[in-house]
Formats: sequence, C-alpha cells, structure tokens
Amino acid sequence: MNTFGNIFRLTTFGESHGPVTGGVIDGMPAGIRIDMDALETMMARRRPGSSGNVSARREADRPEFLSGLLDGVTTGTPIAFTIANTDARSADYDAMANTYRPCHADYTYQMKYGIRDHRGGGRASARETAARVVAGALAKQVLTGYGISVDAYILQIGRVAEKSAEVTAAMKAEIEEARAEGDTLGGIVGCTISGCPAGIGEPMYAKLQAMLAGAMMSINAAKGFDYGSGFAGAAMRGSELIDTFIPASDGTITTLTNHSGGIQGGISNGQPIDFRVVFKPVATMMRPMQTVDTDGSPVTLQPRGRHDVCVVPRAVAVVEAMAAMTVLDAIMMDQCHGSTRFV
Amino acid sequence: MNTFGNIFRLTTFGESHGPVTGGVIDGMPAGIRIDMDALETMMARRRPGSSGNVSARREADRPEFLSGLLDGVTTGTPIAFTIANTDARSADYDAMANTYRPCHADYTYQMKYGIRDHRGGGRASARETAARVVAGALAKQVLTGYGISVDAYILQIGRVAEKSAEVTAAMKAEIEEARAEGDTLGGIVGCTISGCPAGIGEPMYAKLQAMLAGAMMSINAAKGFDYGSGFAGAAMRGSELIDTFIPASDGTITTLTNHSGGIQGGISNGQPIDFRVVFKPVATMMRPMQTVDTDGSPVTLQPRGRHDVCVVPRAVAVVEAMAAMTVLDAIMMDQCHGSTRFV
Amino acid sequence: MNTFGNIFRLTTFGESHGPVTGGVIDGMPAGIRIDMDALETMMARRRPGSSGNVSARREADRPEFLSGLLDGVTTGTPIAFTIANTDARSADYDAMANTYRPCHADYTYQMKYGIRDHRGGGRASARETAARVVAGALAKQVLTGYGISVDAYILQIGRVAEKSAEVTAAMKAEIEEARAEGDTLGGIVGCTISGCPAGIGEPMYAKLQAMLAGAMMSINAAKGFDYGSGFAGAAMRGSELIDTFIPASDGTITTLTNHSGGIQGGISNGQPIDFRVVFKPVATMMRPMQTVDTDGSPVTLQPRGRHDVCVVPRAVAVVEAMAAMTVLDAIMMDQCHGSTRFV
Amino acid sequence: MNTFGNIFRLTTFGESHGPVTGGVIDGMPAGIRIDMDALETMMARRRPGSSGNVSARREADRPEFLSGLLDGVTTGTPIAFTIANTDARSADYDAMANTYRPCHADYTYQMKYGIRDHRGGGRASARETAARVVAGALAKQVLTGYGISVDAYILQIGRVAEKSAEVTAAMKAEIEEARAEGDTLGGIVGCTISGCPAGIGEPMYAKLQAMLAGAMMSINAAKGFDYGSGFAGAAMRGSELIDTFIPASDGTITTLTNHSGGIQGGISNGQPIDFRVVFKPVATMMRPMQTVDTDGSPVTLQPRGRHDVCVVPRAVAVVEAMAAMTVLDAIMMDQCHGSTRFV
Repeated sequence: MNTFGNIFRLTTFGESHGPVTGGVIDGMPAGIRIDMDALETMMARRRPGSSGNVSARREADRPEFLSGLLDGVTTGTPIAFTIANTDARSADYDAMANTYRPCHADYTYQMKYGIRDHRGGGRASARETAARVVAGALAKQVLTGYGISVDAYILQIGRVAEKSAEVTAAMKAEIEEARAEGDTLGGIVGCTISGCPAGIGEPMYAKLQAMLAGAMMSINAAKGFDYGSGFAGAAMRGSELIDTFIPASDGTITTLTNHSGGIQGGISNGQPIDFRVVFKPVATMMRPMQTVDTDGSPVTLQPRGRHDVCVVPRAVAVVEAMAAMTVLDAIMMDQCHGSTRFV
Repeated sequence: MNTFGNIFRLTTFGESHGPVTGGVIDGMPAGIRIDMDALETMMARRRPGSSGNVSARREADRPEFLSGLLDGVTTGTPIAFTIANTDARSADYDAMANTYRPCHADYTYQMKYGIRDHRGGGRASARETAARVVAGALAKQVLTGYGISVDAYILQIGRVAEKSAEVTAAMKAEIEEARAEGDTLGGIVGCTISGCPAGIGEPMYAKLQAMLAGAMMSINAAKGFDYGSGFAGAAMRGSELIDTFIPASDGTITTLTNHSGGIQGGISNGQPIDFRVVFKPVATMMRPMQTVDTDGSPVTLQPRGRHDVCVVPRAVAVVEAMAAMTVLDAIMMDQCHGSTRFV
Repeated sequence: MNTFGNIFRLTTFGESHGPVTGGVIDGMPAGIRIDMDALETMMARRRPGSSGNVSARREADRPEFLSGLLDGVTTGTPIAFTIANTDARSADYDAMANTYRPCHADYTYQMKYGIRDHRGGGRASARETAARVVAGALAKQVLTGYGISVDAYILQIGRVAEKSAEVTAAMKAEIEEARAEGDTLGGIVGCTISGCPAGIGEPMYAKLQAMLAGAMMSINAAKGFDYGSGFAGAAMRGSELIDTFIPASDGTITTLTNHSGGIQGGISNGQPIDFRVVFKPVATMMRPMQTVDTDGSPVTLQPRGRHDVCVVPRAVAVVEAMAAMTVLDAIMMDQCHGSTRFV
Repeated sequence: MNTFGNIFRLTTFGESHGPVTGGVIDGMPAGIRIDMDALETMMARRRPGSSGNVSARREADRPEFLSGLLDGVTTGTPIAFTIANTDARSADYDAMANTYRPCHADYTYQMKYGIRDHRGGGRASARETAARVVAGALAKQVLTGYGISVDAYILQIGRVAEKSAEVTAAMKAEIEEARAEGDTLGGIVGCTISGCPAGIGEPMYAKLQAMLAGAMMSINAAKGFDYGSGFAGAAMRGSELIDTFIPASDGTITTLTNHSGGIQGGISNGQPIDFRVVFKPVATMMRPMQTVDTDGSPVTLQPRGRHDVCVVPRAVAVVEAMAAMTVLDAIMMDQCHGSTRFV
C-alpha cells in the first residue's frame, strides 16, 4: 500500500534515518525530456532548512535517477530514484526507542506490526514526502505540456489568514511567537489547477474530488480537505451557490461563478479546480511532554532533534506534487476510454 | 471505476430511471446470517419520501438478492442485488434532454462520454446511493460482530448547528423557510466509529483518513471532509491539541483527549474515529433558473419533478454505509498481513 | 476477486441453481450500438443442449440488460445484465449436499469458506461462463470496429486432432464412444486474433501472453496454455524458430514466419496472435464413483443430473470471449499512455 | 505495470545496462529475520556465468537493501534493493541502436513507446529477473516458516527430457552440440509446491492456476504453462484422471492420485501443486542473422556480446521465485477473509 495512483503510479520507500529515501514512478509517458532545473526548484520549496521557519536539517535533496531515462528523456519504463539522507543524526532519537511520542505514529506502528523503526519517525517521517515531490515535479512537467498549471499556496498559518505564495511578515511573526513559547502551529494550504479541460475524472468512486481528497489526506499532518464552496457552503442557500452556465465568447460553454470548484458530478467542467487542505500543528514541541513508554509507564519526553514550528510552508510543494500526480493520473484514466483531449 | 474498496468491494450499476439500481458485493466474509430487518431499517433512513423534508418519490427500496446467500447465510461468493425503480416518472425529465442543468453532471457527462442518459440525472442521480446503503448495512453487520459500531448524525442544516440523530424543530423550521422561498440547504454530517482496535489502516497512501476521505467525497454533493481537530485546528497551537498517552485501567494504553480523531500515522489508535462531511445545498431549486441548452444557447429552466430541499437527513445513512465499508475493507486489508484481531 | 480485467472489467455473480447468473461490465466505451443478434449468436455457441454432444440442460440464455444502455447504445456507465436460470432442477443435487464429488470444487470451497452451495456446483459451475460470453460478445463488437477479429476453434477432442470450427464426424464418433462407456473426454481449443496492430500489451508483468494465460486458466477445466511455438518448441533449435523481419510491401515491417505467435517482449508485433488452451475431461461421469462424504467416510456417488461428455465444443465461445476481453483491456491500457492507434 | 502481485507486491526497475537493477517489495510480513545466505544461494542459481552453459557475464549479484529492515528484521515497510550492473559492456550493443533483432522486443518497444533503450535489451533484458529472484527468495523464507516448500527443476533441455535438479551429462552434450553449431536450445522447467494446505486461491478470476500461469508467462522466453494432467490429458479419458477422495490416516481427506495438480476449482486441495513452464530457444544466436534496420531496410546482424545457449538452467530459480511470490500472495489474499491457517 505504498503505491499511489492507478496509471501514473508512484511507489515510495525509505525510512527517515536509513541511507536513502526513494521512489519508482511507473506509467510516466515516454519521450519527455526532464527539466532537471525545474525539478530542483520544486525540491527546494519542500526542503527543510530553507528558512528559519522550518527544520534545520540540511540536505541537498538531489534525486539520483537509476532507470527509465535515456539521455535525459523518458522511455516509458519505470523511473527509479533515490535521495540520500545525508544529515540524519540517529543518536538524537535513541532515547525514543522505548517511548511513544504523543500524536505520532510510534504507538500505532507498534500495534500494527509488532515492530517499528523508531529513528526519526522511520517510515512515518515527513522525509517520505521528498519522493512525492520528485514524482510530482515530473507530473507537473507533463501537465505543463498539456497547458495545465498546478499552483499551491499558503492560505493560513496559525491565526493569520492571507493567501500568499510565501510566508508573509504577519505569518513570520506568528511563527516566531510560537517558537518563543516552544509551541507549534498549523494552517491551511490552497491549490488551484488551471487549464484542465472538461471531462477529466471518473463519475462514481473515482470522482476527481475523491481522488484529490484521498491524495491530500495521505499527506502527513493533513486533517481535512474541501473544494469549491467547501465547508463554508454548509450555511449558504442553494441560490447563492448556483454556477449559471453561459455561452463563452469562443463558442464553448462556461459558468458565471465557480462555487463548484471546477468539478461537477466528479468530472472537471473546464473551470479552475480549487481546493484546500488543513494541516495540524506539528506534534513535536520544544517543551517537555508527558507520555508513556512501551511498557505503558508514564515518562517525560525531553525535546531533542530538529523540528519545524509549522509544516505549512513546506507542505505547499507536497500539496502541489500530489495534485499534479492526481490530475495526470485522471487524465491517463480518461485516455483509456479513447479520449484524445491531449493528442 | 464503479467499484469501491479493495477487499470488501462494491460494484454498483443502474440509472435513476432505468428498471433497477443495484450492486455486487465481493469479498463479504462467509458464514454470516444477514439480518434483513436491520437492513430494511437502514434503507428506510435513506429513503426519499420518509418525511416532508425530502423528495416525495416513494419506493419500497427493498433489495432483491440474486446470489451469494444460502438460506440467508453468506457463502463467500458475490452477493448481487437489485432495487426496483418503481416510481420513476421519466416524462418529468423529457424537457431536460437538451438542457444542461446548472451544478449537475449533465454537461460534464456529455463532455466526457459524448452521450448521456438525461432522465433524472441518469447514473449521476443520488438514486445510486441506495446500493451503497445495502452494502454498508451488510458491512455494519460484520462490524457489529467485531464489536465495532458506526454511527452518523446530523451536525448542521443550513444555519442550524446541532448534533442530532434526527431533524430537530429548529432544523425543520430552517428547511420550511427555504422551501417556502423555493430555495435549498446544505449542511454537515458527522460520524463516529467506536470499538475499532488499534492497528487498522495502512501507513502511506491507504491511510485510514485517506480511505475515509475518498469514500466520503465520492458521495453526491459532498464538498469537504475533516477528522479529529480538522479545519478548526488550523488556528490552534500544538500544545492545545496534544493527545497525551496514559496507562489505561486494563493495562493497555489510552489517550487523555482525542484531537487525533482516533487515527495516528494513518492507523487507528483504539480511540473513537470521528469525522465530518459537508454537503452543498441541493442544486435543483423550485424556481426558474437560467442556463444553456446543448447548443450553448441561453434557456430558462422551469422547476419540475420532485426534489429534496436538503439532502443532509438522507445523507446520514449514506455516510454511515460508506464508513462501514471503509473500515471493514481496512480490517480485511490488515488481516492480509496475518493479523488476528478478530479471530 | 470475481472481477476480470483492468480497464474493461467484468464482475460476475450467480450460482448454478440460483435465480440468475449475471455480470456487470465496467469500462465499456460509450456510443456503441449493441448488435443483439451477434450477441445471441455467440451465446448460442456456448449454450448447453445445442447438440447431442453436450449437456441436455436447455435455457434460452438471453441476457436481460439492466443498465448502461440508452436506446441500445452504450453510455459509458456500467452495463449490468442477468441471465435467467430457467431449467435448474435442484432436486437432482440434494444428494450431494453431504458428498465431495471427485475433481470438483466441493471440497476446496468447503475448506476455504466453511460453507458451500452444493446445488449443481454453485458458483463453481460452468454456468458462470454464460456471463463471460455476454461480455466477450460486447468486447468483440468493439474490436470489430477496430478491425480486429478473434476466432477460436476446436483443435482436438479426445484422441482426434483436427482444426475445425465445428465438431467433425470423427470427433462425434469419439464422443459417442466415450458416452457409450459412461466416460468423458477433454481436448484443445485454439484461438487466433487477427488485425491487432503492433504495440499492444505491457512489457513486464502484464505481458500480453501473461494476460491471455491468466484469462484462459480462469476458465473451468482449463489445464494449460501455450502460444506461438509453445510446448512444441521445447525440442527445437533456435535457428528453426527465428521470425526474420522483412520489409512489407506497404512500407511497414513484417516477419517471414510467426513462431513468436504475434507477441515479442510481451507486446504485439502486428502478426496474428495465436494460442491454445487444453481442457481436461469432464469430471462427472455417468458411472458410479467412489468418494467420501463431508465426514470423510467413503461413499459411492451415483450418476445424476445432466452433464457434457466433453466441454470443448462449448468452451470455444468462452475462449473467444475471454480473448476478446483481454485484448480490448490491453488496448485500453495502451490508450492510457496516450496512444491513438484506434482514433 | 511493472508491479507483480496483489498483497505481496514486487515493483521492479532498471535496464540491462543502466547502473543498477532493483525492486521494491511491498507487503512483506513484519518481524521476519532475513537469511542472507539463503538469499545468496538462490541468487547464485540464477547468476550468469555460473557454468559453461550460460552467459559469460559475471556479476556478484549481491542485492543492497535500502529500506524496510531494522537490524536484519523486516518491519512491514517497503523493502527496496538494488543490484549493481558491474559488468555491462554497452559498446557491444552500439551497433544495435538502429537494428531490430529478430524475436526480441526491439521492434515492439519502438512501436509502443516511440523510443527504446537499445543497450542489451534495455528493460526487456533477462537481467530484470535478478530482482524477481531477490523477492522470491524472501517469499520462500516466509513460506518455509509456514511449512511450505517450492522446488523447481529441469524437465527437458532441447531433445533431452530428464527430471533433474541440475544439468545432466546428456543435457550438457545437447548444449555443447548446439553451441558448436552456433545454435540455441529451449526446454521445460517443472515446479512442485509442497505443504500448501487446502483453501488457498480465489475461486473465479484469481484461481491459483490463473495466478501461476500469469506469473510464469511474465518470464522472458516462456511460451507455455500447464499443471496437473496438463496438455497430456487432452487425449485421456475422464476415468483415467479421476482423483478419488479417500480418508487420510490423520482424519483429514486426501486423494489417491493427483492429476488435479493440487488445485480444484481454483483452490488448493492440500496435495502437491505441480506445473510446468516451457521456454523457447534463446533468440540471439552466434551466427549471422538477416533482419531489418529501423528504416525497414534489410541488414545482416553479426553475432556479438555474451549469450546463453539455453536459459533453462538459469530459469529454474526464476520459476521458483515467481511461484513462491504467487503462493505467498494467494495466502495473504486468503487471510483477508479472516482465515487463520498460518497463525
């Protein structure tokens, strides 16, 4: 169950403190020259240590490609890649071998498997999202060729709600205040997919919003998803949310408004697809925390290691990556039926 | 893509105004005696016409089982069933053959397939959810045998927010006000899964919250999903949301609070799993609406047929059904690994 | 696991002596007018009682379509159908409730599920193949539109090896001899897929021959599969089996011979795809047979019911159906990648 | 489509002349200590250059594990591994960039993807089977713990048919004769799975023989599969092939004979599962061969590189690996239903 997607598929592997994190992309269209600079730019957005707001762990995060490329061009065979874990200090975590950190996956992994890799969260670490961003960056390049853009952005950090591509001054202040208190923050990431033609998405259980929701809720710390009018629409009247169809100037059909969020009946309608993902505050705080050890006895956990105050800035690239993979996968599923929207 | 689930799988079929709606359940455990009364009770909760608040379409909604049972006991083979569409008045919909209703799937189906069954929404009709409730009712019976309960309820209708198993007087007033204005309402359904042991859910892309989100967002009119601290947690501090582990009186481990919503790292932690689903207001209103015909020319749509003012009361059973199927599927996936939590 | 295929998918249901056998076809391309006469002709080839050689059970085997068609044209939504079991005499089988028939699925179903439907083989009955032929007939109609034909034929019945579309005089004599002795026969069915362009099939685990082999070995009584040079090639030299590439008159590339059976590296090469499936003799014989009851005590099974002497004549339509579904599924998988061989 | 299996899943990657071949195993049970010596022994059986009969390419073929192990014990997370391609001389293959070798995948990959990695067969090289043997060796270790053994052996090389664990003197002579003539040989590999209890395998499209056939036919150069009475049974009478049930001395039920090959109705019956796979002669011969270049013009291909005369000796380990993965996958699918045959 470490595979995402139906046709465009990513299988990831690697623990936080193993030698590498990596993935295998299966289903990447053939004949596409990878833009390694664009890939690196997207990786940099997710990278820890890129600002004072996030984890101080510093790694080049440059993927090494092991297969699937011939002179930088995709061949249709699986694209495997690894990313070295160059800066993992396992010693920071030795004390946690016998402790269940609150709001982490320590206890649940132990209950499920009877064994767990305690070093830095093991498989449950956000380190795994680096592999998602590699695959998402490749998916984005395919989408760009189709005229589709995927853009995620910050909508809220803590109590500061501002749509923004980068952390604003008010958000920085919010983060610094939490840091000073040894506390952490959550927030909301928004995402807009533009240029997607009508007809993408499957009508019943693979509705486009269902695929997007499943993708987003697979990201660490994500606690909710909504699209279009979303949760705000619960208290509104139908008459406020009707997206009236009108003739477009180019002879096609468009809508006056977009409360539908670009999806109707699970299928894209040609309008921008927009959705939101909420992230909980980081669970590891720089203050002593009460918990239990693996025998169930109370212990106090002392803060160690390096941790983000707020994952939202780094989560932007991950949301974008998951969205890009989801849409490309949906396009490829649509092509199964013989549709030729992109050929 | 009309199949839901991995091990416990439901494939549905049928259009709103065809002879039947139905489904095939594959993966149902063998040797279980179906409680037909409990099934009927659950079907009745979804049935239109069960109160003045919802569509006046009246159907017995009694499933006919075609296979998979021997003297009322499951045999491990696929359970097929149909539900007769006894009260479909297609003539109501003839006028819509050449019109795209706003905020429906008419336009997107046409764009995807180049053809659509316009009668009552065809495949996109909420009629399909009857099949989900049949399968969900069976899944619930299995879960009950495991000591797991799944309970959905109304949290909000329009502007009235009250946790309630049934429509309250304030909600009724809200609905009647909207009805009088020819308008419609949305709302929020909550759901709690109790008795689920720790260890259910797969850690990466099939996280329990990802499976639940995908399931819920596949329901007609659902616009968002959150669990645990959800969207409300965006503005909170980490210190407010820590679920401290403590020893339980029975020697196991429990948590003081449940902001995690019963899931950590994608895996159940033994606490109640709770989540919410928001539904948009019904898109068909009892007032003339502007739209376009299939040639893109503006037309006015006159209200016809029978329509709910608010789907939330009926959606409760659907949310419950999808949750039951999701949890049973996750349990069966967990059993693949050889776990024996229920044997 | 009652679903066949990846994109073009058939889910079947029904026991031999239940009210119906049926299926749900998901992924059928939209906009195709079903030729019901062609469907009936293919059903007739599988039907029991169509000659003296096969089971005397007589049923119209006319599928009733429940969904997915609008005025006889496919809409892209699931096509559900049932076939009435009009001539099932369950009383014939009551004696078998407590007996394990040799070389049947009685014992293994009981071991797997702890319960079984003993009436006429229940789910394990060849009756299920009627649903495969319905779906295969629809797949064939799509393939015909693509210029691809799928033709299965008899290669051998008992000791009589003759390629033939119908049972020949020598085969009839072989069958009558076995019948007179209360014995049964097996044989071999061949199949040729013509007109399939190069490029169909996935290179690794979904090689075209792997998909075909899996499909064929899912048919009741099939004991083996080979293609191209097949088992006969084991004792041959490489130099005897080389398919030399040569320029074709139309500027493309062809091969001088076709020992490859139309597939190289798991992908079609444009030559005819040919394979063979061997069927064991029918396990139910018209003579007393020793076996055990469900307690493990020896019993003698007296012949009852109606049974084929040889399933090969009826299996021809089933092989053809499974081959058609497999190739259409492979074509649709290839289209995922954006290929436009058929548009 | 580079993923094999449903629950126990292997995703492979890598081209013959890239830096590595590798794979990701998902679904491996947790808590199992890997026996690295047993793994190496199985790898050695597949390794080229291990005898004069096979390719002279020499590589250590020692897998490097990247994830999923903690102190040599599986944790339930994905196990990624790579195997270095240390001895790939790409220059040998440069001449083939513009040539389609007969009976290889050169032409079909080009037709499918519009691009191909021509170096040594690229992805289509038998080099990929090294990753299968790694995963198969791990699956075997799990099965051993369940009391199940999987043993493959040579049944035939060229015209010499002898059941044997190793290449016999007569087989060596057959191989040397072909080598002297610059020719190649095929043959047959047999496999027996012992100790598998009754109840494994899914009844309809995932019948155990269908899964095995699909697995075997995904191996390079495999041209056919049969099990139990197989192709030989076509000319036999039903009365010759009946496997009579009898009480076993331990109170269970067994059969007098095993023409069924250990499977009835797609489900194991507790008897040994035995099957055969036929391999065609190696397509690359040490003699000039006529073919065409990528423009379709005739060219003569001169022999180069290192090639097996016969793949059968090396294929034994691959057949065993695929069989082990298939059976473990089927066992894990059976466990989904809650069965506890191994706990």
